[in-house]
Amino acid sequence: MKNERVIFLTNDDGWRAKGFEAAIEVARRFGRVIAVAPEQPQSGKSQAITIYDPLYLKRVRDEEGVTVYSLTGTPVDCVKMAFDHLFRDTKFDLAISGINHGSNAATNVLYSGTMGAAMECSFYNVPTIGLSLTDHAADADFAGAVEYGAKIVEQVLKGDAPLPLCLNVNVPNIPREELKGVRLCRQTRGFWRDIIYRREDPIGREYFWFTGGFENAEPEATESDEWALANGYVAVVPVKVDMTAYEQMESLRDIVE
Amino acid sequence: MKNERVIFLTNDDGWRAKGFEAAIEVARRFGRVIAVAPEQPQSGKSQAITIYDPLYLKRVRDEEGVTVYSLTGTPVDCVKMAFDHLFRDTKFDLAISGINHGSNAATNVLYSGTMGAAMECSFYNVPTIGLSLTDHAADADFAGAVEYGAKIVEQVLKGDAPLPLCLNVNVPNIPREELKGVRLCRQTRGFWRDIIYRREDPIGREYFWFTGGFENAEPEATESDEWALANGYVAVVPVKVDMTAYEQMESLRDIVE
Repeated sequence: MKNERVIFLTNDDGWRAKGFEAAIEVARRFGRVIAVAPEQPQSGKSQAITIYDPLYLKRVRDEEGVTVYSLTGTPVDCVKMAFDHLFRDTKFDLAISGINHGSNAATNVLYSGTMGAAMECSFYNVPTIGLSLTDHAADADFAGAVEYGAKIVEQVLKGDAPLPLCLNVNVPNIPREELKGVRLCRQTRGFWRDIIYRREDPIGREYFWFTGGFENAEPEATESDEWALANGYVAVVPVKVDMTAYEQMESLRDIVE
Repeated sequence: MKNERVIFLTNDDGWRAKGFEAAIEVARRFGRVIAVAPEQPQSGKSQAITIYDPLYLKRVRDEEGVTVYSLTGTPVDCVKMAFDHLFRDTKFDLAISGINHGSNAATNVLYSGTMGAAMECSFYNVPTIGLSLTDHAADADFAGAVEYGAKIVEQVLKGDAPLPLCLNVNVPNIPREELKGVRLCRQTRGFWRDIIYRREDPIGREYFWFTGGFENAEPEATESDEWALANGYVAVVPVKVDMTAYEQMESLRDIVE
């Protein structure tokens, strides 16, 4: 097809994940799909890059309109493999990272491999949407995320979106018909507190295993993404890669310089 | 000693790195040093957390005023191990992550394990300094970084610094006597372009190995950290964990909602 759009896809749960299939379902409505996704689950990998190890690439799927490669690296490695090597000369119209199994709202954005990859895509001046469903289950129901994901993709493709553009889109885990709509939000303040399990391995060595929970520092903030999710809305936060705390500049000048 | 300060230390090059020893040298001037640092090098690990693997902890050093643990995880895992488990009840006066072998200026902050750990420390409302020298060599000369690092630590400890505080401090790799002073800067715009080596392993499988270089999108911007480093200054950028692109909110409202 002439002038067909080209959509780039990646994720952090690996190319076998149900959520990745759901992302393909969204993307192929809008054009040809080219994907490089991790061979293995890469949750929590943030914007990590692989420095000390070689990476292996495989074409794992190739059919009408959909080509998928797997890479033995992080989500960001997948993006770099696509944009700096395999498809250097391709002009992508949009990038989607996801659909993630689990929330990337609030400060999860900092740890998320899905959003790490999304931020990396945005460096290439491709409008990027990180898409997540607040359900970790392997067999989660992505129907609502597919519907709203497609809606947002459509609006971004036809809208005059500012570049660089990186949207952190989270869909609450409620029945599709109960979703109330889309809300533009800011990142919720809060943090993860870890619960650390301490056990002994079969040869008697003590080990630790981390888990934890998010503590919302502002549950009443109606402009926050956690509030939107808790109230049945799809939360959209525009994300930027400039981490400078401009608002602290003046108070720091006397202290630092 | 009564009322002795307690300084937390971590890094991403691992507890055996020369730069970590340099950080201990800085920190012990100001108080008791407690460190949890990676057992293995963790460069490029960003703010990654370990989800799928157990972690092993070891006390590797214990002497007057300095205790060091090693952990088989990421830099952020080390921070969580310290603040959520080992030293839950300790009130740290300051945290230092580093001294990193290599620059964490500009968008390096996004990929850096050193700065990932620093941002994590700042979640615990401890004034935090990420400290890096723009020299990757294992035997780099940290004299200038130690001198200026100590100067900044002193100012932060006595100043009325805003919290959360996370400073990204980079020291140029020039002789100490040529350093011109400290400049408060913003993160330079730019990006990494990867060079991807393609080879064959001993059993004939194709592999890829990533390296790359930073492309400065604004070399003339005198307020940027790359400019400061190129002109002989120690660059200090205050970093925040709210990644919301507030400046895009209005232009996105019509597109997204």
